Amino acid sequence: MSTKTYNVPNISCGHCVNTIERELKELSGVLSVKAEEASKNVTVDTVDEKTQASVEATLAEIGYPVA
Amino acid sequence: MSTKTYNVPNISCGHCVNTIERELKELSGVLSVKAEEASKNVTVDTVDEKTQASVEATLAEIGYPVA
Repeated sequence: MSTKTYNVPNISCGHCVNTIERELKELSGVLSVKAEEASKNVTVDTVDEKTQASVEATLAEIGYPVA
Repeated sequence: MSTKTYNVPNISCGHCVNTIERELKELSGVLSVKAEEASKNVTVDTVDEKTQASVEATLAEIGYPVA
């Protein structure tokens, strides 16, 4: 298992939080996602380290690139 | 063709606008989408009237219900 916390400056409202959690949870290999508006952090548990690359790519695709 | 404008109060930032446009454009039968932060309006062109029902359902699913 792999856990990573990403800093995502574009999180600007609670709907952003929901969007990020929804989109990342759809990815194969993602076990859990917690996005926070205040800290602008997104913590993601995945089955392996490799899956984190697709997490980061998806965040960029949906308009929330990692800082 | 059908054009409808929805009032979506939950649009609270520019990322919301991007999310709504991206998700609705993925729907079959949707021709164009224009979401606006200031007016909180989403205008959608679809191939037929029936498709507008799936537009409204999708807005609700992704956290942006129509008022």
